[in-house]
This record gives sequence, structure tokens and C-alpha cells, in this order.
Amino acid sequence: MGATSRAPDAHDHPPGGSRPARRRLSVDRRREELMAAALELFSKHDAEDVSVDDVASAAGASRALVYHYFGGKQELYVTALRGAAEELEERLRPVGGGSALEEIADGLTRYFDFVEDHAAGFAALLRGGPANRTGEVGEIVESVRRRMLRMITHRMRVEEPGAALRVTLRSWIASVEIAGLDWLENRDMDRATLESLLVDQMTALLGVAARHDHQVNVLLADLLPMRAQ
Amino acid sequence: MGATSRAPDAHDHPPGGSRPARRRLSVDRRREELMAAALELFSKHDAEDVSVDDVASAAGASRALVYHYFGGKQELYVTALRGAAEELEERLRPVGGGSALEEIADGLTRYFDFVEDHAAGFAALLRGGPANRTGEVGEIVESVRRRMLRMITHRMRVEEPGAALRVTLRSWIASVEIAGLDWLENRDMDRATLESLLVDQMTALLGVAARHDHQVNVLLADLLPMRAQ
Repeated sequence: MGATSRAPDAHDHPPGGSRPARRRLSVDRRREELMAAALELFSKHDAEDVSVDDVASAAGASRALVYHYFGGKQELYVTALRGAAEELEERLRPVGGGSALEEIADGLTRYFDFVEDHAAGFAALLRGGPANRTGEVGEIVESVRRRMLRMITHRMRVEEPGAALRVTLRSWIASVEIAGLDWLENRDMDRATLESLLVDQMTALLGVAARHDHQVNVLLADLLPMRAQ
Repeated sequence: MGATSRAPDAHDHPPGGSRPARRRLSVDRRREELMAAALELFSKHDAEDVSVDDVASAAGASRALVYHYFGGKQELYVTALRGAAEELEERLRPVGGGSALEEIADGLTRYFDFVEDHAAGFAALLRGGPANRTGEVGEIVESVRRRMLRMITHRMRVEEPGAALRVTLRSWIASVEIAGLDWLENRDMDRATLESLLVDQMTALLGVAARHDHQVNVLLADLLPMRAQ
């Protein structure tokens, strides 16, 4: 963390720069540094063992500043997770241009970019933590899953997925998650192979659902005109 | 709950029954009733809103008895979840007699019997709760998943699954979980169809993995001699 291009902060004094804009940027950056430090710590240690002092010290900030920005450890944890979830959703936003399956494969690559870039945050997001005591972490994870489901059905031009399509896509999303966690734990398969396995899984799972359900059968003929069932 | 066959309790006085055995049975039964009441409440309400008093009152017991058996709400919650997980693992124990895929399909039926019989407990187990603050719930859920993975690979006569088989089976187990939760949430697909969809998913996912991995390819030829890849 902190190795990205450096934004101007309070120590930079360009001759005629506007002070409020500079100060605002510095505040945002400070907050981001605290969040990055928090995510890193929460994902590498049992949340019970991470203190506000640890986060402050990892970010080179005061304990008071952490409380000022976040209110406390629980809020810091939830905020950091929410930030990670928002970044993931932002990355998954479809760029357009390919077939539905190509775009889903492309989204998968961006999902694994996120897993790779934010290994700690990803594991923290899915493993849950202290905030689950009020269901907030579960809600964040569920919200990402719902968003992924909507992105996929939207790209497939499906307004309201039937039971078979919904279960199939939710299954696949769960597969992608578990594959991401498994990859972080074992790293014994290269990413390209794993991604290609998951794309093939999507096609195969849709093929299975098509045998059970008319909506999926019609959809699949549209998605895979070359190898219609 | 409590509608199952009634075991003898303190009010039954068979002429020559052994008192210690009767008392022991009664203690176990009381504890089970408290656990059943706890699971039911924890899964129907936000854990924050369930008190020891609620559990005691639902089981027709005193608050002191709950503390006596479990120590407190957190311990009660973890104990109830652990009990549910043990019951699930017990039900999944293979009975033998069929082909590997038949036994897996049979295990799936018993998994959904559990989901149906213990809807509240199943949802509680997977949704997590207050105990996640110390990772105990996550550990219980993970332990069930690991046990399922071992049961399946053992039945497939695989000592050490390679990366592709491991990821594929973990994906499928995640699919089964999400399908169980989805079924409880929506109930818009009949169980037999859903189970058959999941068995077909297993075959299809192994077929995908076989295209990427030699171990799975050899395994699949053994599992599905009729439609070897």
C-alpha cells in the first residue's frame, strides 16, 4: 500500500494552487491510507487481535485520527470492507463490445485482478469478521453477489431470471468466490487456467440448466449459437 | 419442534426403571429442547435481538437453566450451530452400495432432507451470526465443507485431489449450499428437480475439469464409463 503515484498533500505548496481543493484531496488520501492499513491488518490477523492503535501505527497516523475518521474499530472494519466491495463492483462494471459470454469472461479477469491486487481485502470480505455480529459484513457480501447476478442477467438481456437460471447463476458466482479463495490459499493453478475453467463451468452449468428449463434453453441458443443444445 | 416421539421424562414412573438412566435421558432431552429453541430463534431473528430470556421462555425453561447448560448466549449460539453441523455430517455418512455418483446423489438427498427438516438451523449455520466475532461460526461452516470434500474424494477413491479436482468439488459444494439457501428463500422449484439439477452440475463440472486436467479425465472415465469424455 502507499506505493501508487503520490497525490499532492499538505507539504506541497505549488505557487498558486487552490488551498481548499488541496486540503480536501489530502483528507481523502489520509482516509484511504487508514482504510488500506485497516484492510491489510484485518485480513492478516484475527480481527480480535487488531487494535485501533495497530491501524494508526501501520498508517503512521494517530489513534485520535482513526477515531476522528471512523468512530472506532467496528466502524473502521465495516467501512474498509464496504470500500473494497465498492471497488470490486466498480471494476466489474461492463465495458461492452463483446458477446455476453466474452464480457462475462472479461469481467472474470477483472474479478481475479481484484483478487490478486487485494488478496488481503478479498479474503477479509469473504471470511467475515467482527462486524458479522450485526450482520453488516454478511449484508456487504450479499450485496456484491446480488450486484454480480444483476450484471450477468442484464448482459444476457434477461429481465427476470426464472428459478433454474437464478440458481445456476448464483451457483456459478459461488464457484467464482470459492475459486478465488482457493487460489489465494493454494496458488497451485495458474490464473489463466483457473479463469478458463470457470468460464467453461458457466457454459456447462447453463447447458445443464437448459436441459431442465425452457428459459435457459432459449437463452443458451442465443448465447452459444455455435453449439446450441 | 418437540413434535417427535416422546422420550420418558421425570413425569414417567415405570415400575422398575433405573433412576440414573432416566434422569440422564431427561437432562439430555432438556438440553436438546433448549438447543432447538435457540436455533429456531437465532435463525428467525437478528441474533442481537435474541436474549437468553427468549430462549428460556421458548423452551419453557428458566433463564438459570440456560446459563447452567450453556454459559451464555454466545456459547449457546455456537453450541447450537455445532450440534446442527454434527447432525448434518452424521446424515451425510455414506451408506454404501451404489456407484460413486449414485452415492453422491443419495448424499445430496439426505443433505436436502436436513435443509428441509432444519430450515432455520441451516440458514443460521450459513448466514453466520454473533459468534463470527471470534471466527467460531466460520470455522464450523468450513469444517462441514472440508468434511463433505473428504467424503466425496474418499468415495471417488482419490487420496489427494489435484488443484482442478479440488477447485471443482469445492465449487460444487458451494453450489449445493447456495442452492439450499435459494430454495429456502424462494421455494419456486421442486426439490427433486433441484437435486437432479445439482447432480447433473456435478457431472458437467467434472467434465469441464477433465478437459483441463489429466487426473479428472482418468477419474471421470471411471465414474462415468457410459459417457467417458
